[in-house]
Amino acid sequence: MDFVNGLRLKDIVEIRDILAGGSNGKEIKIRGAIHTIRDMSEFSFVVLRKYEGLVQCVYEEGKIPDFNIRMLREEATVEAKGIVTAEERAPGGFEIRLTGIRILSEPAKDTTMPIPISKWKLKTSLETKLTLRPVSLRNVRERAIFKIQEGIVRGFRDFMFSQNFTEVRTPKIVAGNAEGGANVFKLEYFGKKAFLAQSPQFYKQTLVGVYDRVFEAAPVFRAEKHNTTRHLNEYTSLDFEMGYIDGFEDIMDMEAAMLKYTLQFLSEEYAKEIRILGIELPDVLHFPAVRFDEAKRLVSEKYNRKIRNPYDLEPEEEILIGKYFKEEYNSDFVFVTHYPSKKRPFYAMDDPADPKFTLSFDLLFKGMEITTGGQRIHSYEEQVAKMEARGMDTEDFKNFLMIHKHGMPPHGGLGIGLERFTMRLLDEQNVRETTLFPRDVSRLEP
Amino acid sequence: MDFVNGLRLKDIVEIRDILAGGSNGKEIKIRGAIHTIRDMSEFSFVVLRKYEGLVQCVYEEGKIPDFNIRMLREEATVEAKGIVTAEERAPGGFEIRLTGIRILSEPAKDTTMPIPISKWKLKTSLETKLTLRPVSLRNVRERAIFKIQEGIVRGFRDFMFSQNFTEVRTPKIVAGNAEGGANVFKLEYFGKKAFLAQSPQFYKQTLVGVYDRVFEAAPVFRAEKHNTTRHLNEYTSLDFEMGYIDGFEDIMDMEAAMLKYTLQFLSEEYAKEIRILGIELPDVLHFPAVRFDEAKRLVSEKYNRKIRNPYDLEPEEEILIGKYFKEEYNSDFVFVTHYPSKKRPFYAMDDPADPKFTLSFDLLFKGMEITTGGQRIHSYEEQVAKMEARGMDTEDFKNFLMIHKHGMPPHGGLGIGLERFTMRLLDEQNVRETTLFPRDVSRLEP
Repeated sequence: MDFVNGLRLKDIVEIRDILAGGSNGKEIKIRGAIHTIRDMSEFSFVVLRKYEGLVQCVYEEGKIPDFNIRMLREEATVEAKGIVTAEERAPGGFEIRLTGIRILSEPAKDTTMPIPISKWKLKTSLETKLTLRPVSLRNVRERAIFKIQEGIVRGFRDFMFSQNFTEVRTPKIVAGNAEGGANVFKLEYFGKKAFLAQSPQFYKQTLVGVYDRVFEAAPVFRAEKHNTTRHLNEYTSLDFEMGYIDGFEDIMDMEAAMLKYTLQFLSEEYAKEIRILGIELPDVLHFPAVRFDEAKRLVSEKYNRKIRNPYDLEPEEEILIGKYFKEEYNSDFVFVTHYPSKKRPFYAMDDPADPKFTLSFDLLFKGMEITTGGQRIHSYEEQVAKMEARGMDTEDFKNFLMIHKHGMPPHGGLGIGLERFTMRLLDEQNVRETTLFPRDVSRLEP
Repeated sequence: MDFVNGLRLKDIVEIRDILAGGSNGKEIKIRGAIHTIRDMSEFSFVVLRKYEGLVQCVYEEGKIPDFNIRMLREEATVEAKGIVTAEERAPGGFEIRLTGIRILSEPAKDTTMPIPISKWKLKTSLETKLTLRPVSLRNVRERAIFKIQEGIVRGFRDFMFSQNFTEVRTPKIVAGNAEGGANVFKLEYFGKKAFLAQSPQFYKQTLVGVYDRVFEAAPVFRAEKHNTTRHLNEYTSLDFEMGYIDGFEDIMDMEAAMLKYTLQFLSEEYAKEIRILGIELPDVLHFPAVRFDEAKRLVSEKYNRKIRNPYDLEPEEEILIGKYFKEEYNSDFVFVTHYPSKKRPFYAMDDPADPKFTLSFDLLFKGMEITTGGQRIHSYEEQVAKMEARGMDTEDFKNFLMIHKHGMPPHGGLGIGLERFTMRLLDEQNVRETTLFPRDVSRLEP
């Protein structure tokens, strides 16, 4: 009988092994994709691409028996054998003088790359980049974007665990939706009508009754028809929900602490990608917080802009609020609090001091909403009253109302749009730049 | 201007603070839900439920001004003030002698719990438990199940990161599907036909071309009509895919190492839940591996069972294979390798030694398939040929074929059904027991 026992040691090295030292002058084996070949007549540079970065190999004509450089194609993958040699001008300070090459795989015959992915920066349109996503992501800068995104989620999760949150996985096929409106995808579910979840709202509230504090990082779906630079029809939502709060300020405190942690985590664990992308991490010492109505007044006064609708924030106003707090407080972030009740969902808790407003907030990052959060109604009677006042049929929500009926602690939470957050962090102008495989009104592939 | 600065210190303690010592004889404040009230005539036990466990409080009549025990209802949430007192018979070895109670929230008027969640074990039918999931999960054993599930995913992720995998997030709304067949959910996508992803297959292969090794823990959707104890229409798939492999054995090695790590991680970090649920973690020193045809022969001989179809494994055969390897090798796991080509998708690599079979495997855990994996075709010409032999239109897959056309390393991967794995680990008889909010042919709520 054969047995599988776990990882077997292989004599293949990684870049980190070489950088760790001790390989200089030694012959090693390394595997990677042929990123570029530069023929220098006497010799050739063969640059290998690995997940960690690029490795410069040097091939001297005649050094490898039965091999010549014309046998090697870009995007083939190889096992290269060679002597590690310190070389200041090479990436990482070393190069590999080739003594052997074994081709592991090759691209299709008679093909060439549709875009020059080995260029430092892809100078193609976003449209082209997206259409060619399966290969354009092989560009070193492009792939660094999604390492940063990985880091954001890791930071978020690590921090949540440190604060005693439980990670949950809630269903994406649902019978009803929390956020209301028409922007919901419908599907046929064994003869029943079902929807794709716009948010994990009902479930995360439910699970606060179980675990006190929960979080989830998962896809959400919005059938919004507008095709803007900041909307996606499928995106990743970083959600948390916490019980036993004293007020919605506890939620903002938690988010602020999470962002501090995550940005610190990025600066430590993703320094390479931060350097590749030239990111300047924002200062997060403190986050100004301003009431919704006050924010509108401030920007209206400073920038001579008439308030057209006192109950809504237009995207241009968000940009101006961002500008105001950058200019006045040198902050890239601002919490805008107390959104009007009519603009918030039925589960939002109204401000007892003025029920036209809610105990809720958005977080703006460089003038764009990246978080919506707030305190939720925990009392059954209060929740039913608010639904009835809105003409909703409570019977449609009896599973949700089960939690209020049988007791819920005071609680609240938020949702962060991961791709938008990444977009702002990287100063990108289109959220599709920071989405692996974006879904929008006209894009369903690749 | 107000500023949000991060977490503020509160004078509320957690169970862990008390267990850390130093609180004995001191007055503290703690928050939780009223799990049970037991009136002992002279005094009452008030058990608080927190995410960490239960806390026994003792209320003596008259000790708290303007308060009596009849003002307190089960499932209300409170802030309790009291003196921490060592008490052997209490959970955790301490109790809190109440000196004050502040009610934070209450269940609806005139309601009682539909099931006795404070019982150690819920003795209701699965059907009832699922229908009442929002409250039945408050049971200490029920919620422990999904802490274990959290732990499995954490173990999986931590191990993947340690092996230089990149975490990715791939779209769930897709234009085409990898696994084929009719069991796919359709949805209307702005006038186009779209589907819910049956697996992240195309995307994870694509991303191997970018990051060499990738993983994802995310929902997948299968519109299978059969309503069995082991099928779900939405489940969590733990997927990984790795490049530069020497053979599909590398994938089994990686899974074996991951399982060893994860079970060790559970035993350390989730010891409390393991105790609550009485789980006996399986031995994972080594995993037997047997060829598909050989496995069929072995169980046919040992259990006198006729092989009806040499190219398929019936669920009963899986159970017998599990039984065989338990009896013969004392192993709860067995890798079954070299599945027939006609039973595997078009991207599976055939065995050059006998193309009727593939370089693939399933992992059975106590007689049930919890993983499907294998090596994939990396050559463009080979992939096109296999698709054409199956009568598929390569034009429908041109985004997927882009990766082969432009070069892919030898690679492979697997998908693990999280809920099934949890089910087997906990010796549950129905996968719905280990699914937070299951979706099946007849269940779309809650």
